Amino acid sequence: MAPGKKGILERLNAGEVVIGDGGFVFALEKRGYVKAGPWTPEAAAEYPEAVRQLHREFLRAGANVMQTFTFYASDDKLENRGNKLSFTGAQINEAACDLARQVANEGDALVAGGVCQTPSYLSCKSEADVKAIFKKQLDVFVKKNVDFLIAEYFEHVEEAVWAVEVLKETGKPVAACLCIGPEGDMHGVSPGECAVRLVKAGAQIVGVNCHFDPMTCVKAVKMMKEGVEKAGLKAHYMVQPLAYHTPDCNCQGFIDLPEFPFGLEPRILTRWDMHKYAREAYNVGIRFIGGCCGFEPYHIRAVAEELAAERGIMPAGSEKHGMWGAGLEMHTKPWVRARARRDYWENLKPASGRPLCPSLANPDGWGVTKGHADLMQQKEATSKDQLKQLFDRSKSH
Amino acid sequence: MAPGKKGILERLNAGEVVIGDGGFVFALEKRGYVKAGPWTPEAAAEYPEAVRQLHREFLRAGANVMQTFTFYASDDKLENRGNKLSFTGAQINEAACDLARQVANEGDALVAGGVCQTPSYLSCKSEADVKAIFKKQLDVFVKKNVDFLIAEYFEHVEEAVWAVEVLKETGKPVAACLCIGPEGDMHGVSPGECAVRLVKAGAQIVGVNCHFDPMTCVKAVKMMKEGVEKAGLKAHYMVQPLAYHTPDCNCQGFIDLPEFPFGLEPRILTRWDMHKYAREAYNVGIRFIGGCCGFEPYHIRAVAEELAAERGIMPAGSEKHGMWGAGLEMHTKPWVRARARRDYWENLKPASGRPLCPSLANPDGWGVTKGHADLMQQKEATSKDQLKQLFDRSKSH
Amino acid sequence: MAPGKKGILERLNAGEVVIGDGGFVFALEKRGYVKAGPWTPEAAAEYPEAVRQLHREFLRAGANVMQTFTFYASDDKLENRGNKLSFTGAQINEAACDLARQVANEGDALVAGGVCQTPSYLSCKSEADVKAIFKKQLDVFVKKNVDFLIAEYFEHVEEAVWAVEVLKETGKPVAACLCIGPEGDMHGVSPGECAVRLVKAGAQIVGVNCHFDPMTCVKAVKMMKEGVEKAGLKAHYMVQPLAYHTPDCNCQGFIDLPEFPFGLEPRILTRWDMHKYAREAYNVGIRFIGGCCGFEPYHIRAVAEELAAERGIMPAGSEKHGMWGAGLEMHTKPWVRARARRDYWENLKPASGRPLCPSLANPDGWGVTKGHADLMQQKEATSKDQLKQLFDRSKSH
Amino acid sequence: MAPGKKGILERLNAGEVVIGDGGFVFALEKRGYVKAGPWTPEAAAEYPEAVRQLHREFLRAGANVMQTFTFYASDDKLENRGNKLSFTGAQINEAACDLARQVANEGDALVAGGVCQTPSYLSCKSEADVKAIFKKQLDVFVKKNVDFLIAEYFEHVEEAVWAVEVLKETGKPVAACLCIGPEGDMHGVSPGECAVRLVKAGAQIVGVNCHFDPMTCVKAVKMMKEGVEKAGLKAHYMVQPLAYHTPDCNCQGFIDLPEFPFGLEPRILTRWDMHKYAREAYNVGIRFIGGCCGFEPYHIRAVAEELAAERGIMPAGSEKHGMWGAGLEMHTKPWVRARARRDYWENLKPASGRPLCPSLANPDGWGVTKGHADLMQQKEATSKDQLKQLFDRSKSH
Repeated sequence: MAPGKKGILERLNAGEVVIGDGGFVFALEKRGYVKAGPWTPEAAAEYPEAVRQLHREFLRAGANVMQTFTFYASDDKLENRGNKLSFTGAQINEAACDLARQVANEGDALVAGGVCQTPSYLSCKSEADVKAIFKKQLDVFVKKNVDFLIAEYFEHVEEAVWAVEVLKETGKPVAACLCIGPEGDMHGVSPGECAVRLVKAGAQIVGVNCHFDPMTCVKAVKMMKEGVEKAGLKAHYMVQPLAYHTPDCNCQGFIDLPEFPFGLEPRILTRWDMHKYAREAYNVGIRFIGGCCGFEPYHIRAVAEELAAERGIMPAGSEKHGMWGAGLEMHTKPWVRARARRDYWENLKPASGRPLCPSLANPDGWGVTKGHADLMQQKEATSKDQLKQLFDRSKSH
Repeated sequence: MAPGKKGILERLNAGEVVIGDGGFVFALEKRGYVKAGPWTPEAAAEYPEAVRQLHREFLRAGANVMQTFTFYASDDKLENRGNKLSFTGAQINEAACDLARQVANEGDALVAGGVCQTPSYLSCKSEADVKAIFKKQLDVFVKKNVDFLIAEYFEHVEEAVWAVEVLKETGKPVAACLCIGPEGDMHGVSPGECAVRLVKAGAQIVGVNCHFDPMTCVKAVKMMKEGVEKAGLKAHYMVQPLAYHTPDCNCQGFIDLPEFPFGLEPRILTRWDMHKYAREAYNVGIRFIGGCCGFEPYHIRAVAEELAAERGIMPAGSEKHGMWGAGLEMHTKPWVRARARRDYWENLKPASGRPLCPSLANPDGWGVTKGHADLMQQKEATSKDQLKQLFDRSKSH
Repeated sequence: MAPGKKGILERLNAGEVVIGDGGFVFALEKRGYVKAGPWTPEAAAEYPEAVRQLHREFLRAGANVMQTFTFYASDDKLENRGNKLSFTGAQINEAACDLARQVANEGDALVAGGVCQTPSYLSCKSEADVKAIFKKQLDVFVKKNVDFLIAEYFEHVEEAVWAVEVLKETGKPVAACLCIGPEGDMHGVSPGECAVRLVKAGAQIVGVNCHFDPMTCVKAVKMMKEGVEKAGLKAHYMVQPLAYHTPDCNCQGFIDLPEFPFGLEPRILTRWDMHKYAREAYNVGIRFIGGCCGFEPYHIRAVAEELAAERGIMPAGSEKHGMWGAGLEMHTKPWVRARARRDYWENLKPASGRPLCPSLANPDGWGVTKGHADLMQQKEATSKDQLKQLFDRSKSH
Repeated sequence: MAPGKKGILERLNAGEVVIGDGGFVFALEKRGYVKAGPWTPEAAAEYPEAVRQLHREFLRAGANVMQTFTFYASDDKLENRGNKLSFTGAQINEAACDLARQVANEGDALVAGGVCQTPSYLSCKSEADVKAIFKKQLDVFVKKNVDFLIAEYFEHVEEAVWAVEVLKETGKPVAACLCIGPEGDMHGVSPGECAVRLVKAGAQIVGVNCHFDPMTCVKAVKMMKEGVEKAGLKAHYMVQPLAYHTPDCNCQGFIDLPEFPFGLEPRILTRWDMHKYAREAYNVGIRFIGGCCGFEPYHIRAVAEELAAERGIMPAGSEKHGMWGAGLEMHTKPWVRARARRDYWENLKPASGRPLCPSLANPDGWGVTKGHADLMQQKEATSKDQLKQLFDRSKSH
């Protein structure tokens, strides 16, 4: 850590708002550097300038955390990737640490080394095997001296607990996020109970990332907080949701929407939706607020602008952005100038321009039959039970 | 031009498909380097690495043309920008040329110097005054030796003709684009007549950019082509549309949609929409096919993938993209793997996830009253007449 | 005619507004007395109390015209109906006249005998054959002494002209309506030209019924009016449109919508939509304003309420209806009482409650391929040309 | 009861399916005989032929129950109606009984005398006062010797229990329906607990009517059945839902939707939706299946057609209706004939023709702020708690 910079726990203990960055795999897929399907981060080594640029944009947007671009960079995942890579897992992880550190040093940001769920767990490897996988990435993070660690994107709290146990051995602060909604993990463990287990395993920060839209994720983290407090424990809370509206998805989140991953455009949140998200997350008591898939730099900037008063600072990138559309005051047309005000954008109900498309979708999934919006709650329950059964069956073999 | 590279006219005369790049001001606004409202390109001098990166992404996506990031970089526009810039107009234009050239040299791309409509024309300055404005930018393009010139984003064919007349003096090939739809320019001059005037003024390539969705722009260019052919003239054709669905906009295009510019997300085209656009443009006889506002690198890549057989080459960026979603074959969930096929994505009707929002909007504009979808055609006519009257009135003062 | 009642031409010549009734075949299909598919009116003889009740409801709603329920009651149609009926064509036509007369006598209404297009014409019978078919219905109308005659629901102006020529022989006033939109009849004859031919054949009232939504029909009648005036002729105008929103249909109207005839519910106009229709029809100069398929008594009442000032009378049925929702002032819940005002209902954008459904459909038809909203105009043209070709081919055999 | 006809309990005990009728106040409002706001049934005395005709249409559609048109015909409601009526409460109730009996005798139907919630209860009158109100209507039902009794449309189970207690004194079979959804009554008493109380009070048939769409009502009745069975009790079950899609309403049902009552058209269920409803209700174990507001005769016919095999009979009205659109086989256009098949209509997603309207609405209500679809569940809870508090407060005064 650069001398004089406060660590993640110092910041959160002091009640500060910490802004996370956005989603690298989706943003870099659109820029041409990540392949959808495998979603692996070899670009850290292959195209460092593209990854560095994205880090810089999030820093400029107000982010205080540069997550190493090491999502799905565990050796077991990289090997399953479909075609041989020119770099080893260690090279990719090291390159990602260097890029994150370089940009973090250009502003008020910390470096967080990240691990996520592994194919090894899903194929029912032993606890020891899975932990060994995490350990390999962790060796790089220790060598590169990241500022803290994040275990994120876990569908099963059991695997997340194993990850936390490994990460804790470093002595660095540990954050842990599940990619779950209010219904809980894929075994049906509730958000509250999940959070309790993660805190007991040693995580100082717990929360949710990916898979659901901002309001749904905030709701799930709120349930985590209630669970932790009810258990008489203490923790900090974080949230890094999708930048897609997903009111219609079931317990596995946006993966099961028919639009995933190449038709999600109509669901992208506007910057104004992000203002509402940031405010709601803050009100619920979450202080580490960032984004995951779909978040572009302007989404993070909107979060930072909404919380500018609380943080006492505007993001650097606001140099190119009037608050609530104020820049439109310079537009040549009077009716466009008339949009340079907060209530216009707060109340806008944006049209899709797609009159032949529905507003909600029927998610795919195990044996989920096509139905109506009013049957969705029921379907989710069904789907969750089926998932659990299938998973339990596979684990017992 | 790098030795051995074919010029723009050589390519088009040979029947090759030339892929343009995407929209810099919108893409860089989201990345934090352009301010919505003024929309000026000072970032070329301020943040060259951000601009260079975007050039690289479009090159990697398959673009054969690097347009200098000089949109609204005329001196009269930069002066009206609202706050003082740290760089002169000349510095910005020069920096933009250098960045475009650097990246063009990394692949099979040409550099196009670009000018667009001016505040001087809209405030009724004389032909000489307006031409002097174009001349200043042109001096930079000549000094930096760009490969050809594009006059684009003109609402009035009269000003575009003046621009072409200035650009022609350099001896370089000249392309000219209006930001109009099938209804014609803001004086009601039809696309066919506009094209004839531009060709007569000396443009070798004519077409349409911005303001409307791809299918609408293609339709307008088709009308240009018919006009040119009917007049017994010859030209090449280009199209660089929005990446937004705009079936509901009136003759001024997306500017008048209530979602412009900060709530357009639900209208963003998917990559599959881009396949249809590329095919349609090709079928109509357009051979210079690119994008404008809203186009991200993955949109251009989709155009290049659709026309890969015609061009005889896949874009470099397809290294990270399976055709028609083929990369999903590596996904862990069987129902996501089932999406790895062309007909799935071709037939998808993507949901917006916004059940409280309409599918079409009522555009703003001069005295346009709120109405119904079936009244829109009528409203457009009204709006166009009003525009013309108001403009003529202002010009006559 | 009852002594003291003014005839249809007296009313229209005096500038009065005449309100028509609504659509019998659709209303009685929902009540269980008409079969969708054949759409024949044998219920006039089979279930007279059901038909009489519907007449009474339209009278009570403000209608000045009771059309005999004789749609598709020509002998050639009744014979093709699929299963044998218990009543002859003459019996059905006579029963229908008696019912209309009985109810007309209960209020300020006239009886109009109606004929419509015939299978004979569509199967290319001779002019003499087709006219003989009309003559048989007409004999009943003369015997029962109806007040005037309406030839309606013709897709081809040629057949409508033949009908007018037959009807004129009675000496009674003749109205003629085509079921066409602004694109004209199935041979592509424009609305203006169609109207001129009908007026020249002797129709005193011309207009449009069925197939399109109110605003589209009003637009087509407006074009008729312009055509008639341009030709230096004189006529009165009538319109009896659908009560369904059909912005997405092609030249054959709602028949080709995928929802026809059993899934049209989401398209049903509200009473407030009817206020707008009545006002627009009045403003265009139409003075005989009624309804066709989908119109229920409350729709006609809304037309009569909108034009109450112009007519100098409120409909009897308004006894049970507060203007603009005023009856809600007696509701127990304050937020429902708050809806008892004109601007609430005028501005309401009613939700469909169907988030998995689109807002527009792709119409069926001859070789019309699935497309986008912005291609519809083009499709209509295609479809019209195809229709004409096919029809011409069949006629030439 | 006509000699030889089986009573309601005999039918249900024998496992027969009993079809109810549809909603009189909404159907007669559209026909011009009921005023929205007060919603009182004086038309039974004023316009008997209109009420009789509607009874006949439901009988013809397959209904086995003619409910007396006595909704809101309690003296306290009629007095509050806003303007003086020409008939006394007793006269209205008697006329309604006579009409129902006359038509019931024309087919296989029973007469059910109906009472519903009273202003007296809502204004916190005593149990004795409220029961006296019910007693007055009951005296008429006894005098006219109806076949059984239905207490329906109660928002508070407490009042419904009082009604059942009064009705039981006649010795006639008693059915009791609440207008609630799965969240329970306005005090938050769950459907299961509500049903237990009603059965303990003596109701032999329990269920739900009005306020929610079919699938929601069936769900609530299913919860009632589970509650009754868990309590070791026995009952028959009935359901008479809305014919409107209401996925977006809160605990007070469609009253709080902004479209209530004059803009509900886009939400009307098709006949095919009714097939799904009838099957679902049957599968859940409900054997008395009818309709409430919005149900027209063709909706009831669809229920009867879906259950024709189980009942061993087709409704008389099917004479004019081919199953699953079979009547279209006689249509002249081949692409309309192609719609004469079950899977076409089962899978149709009908468009609204309203591209400027949303698919879901924000319900009104006590202090419910405008929000998003994903906040609706939360809002409902809020709204329910508020309702309960407000009601408890008012009752305690």
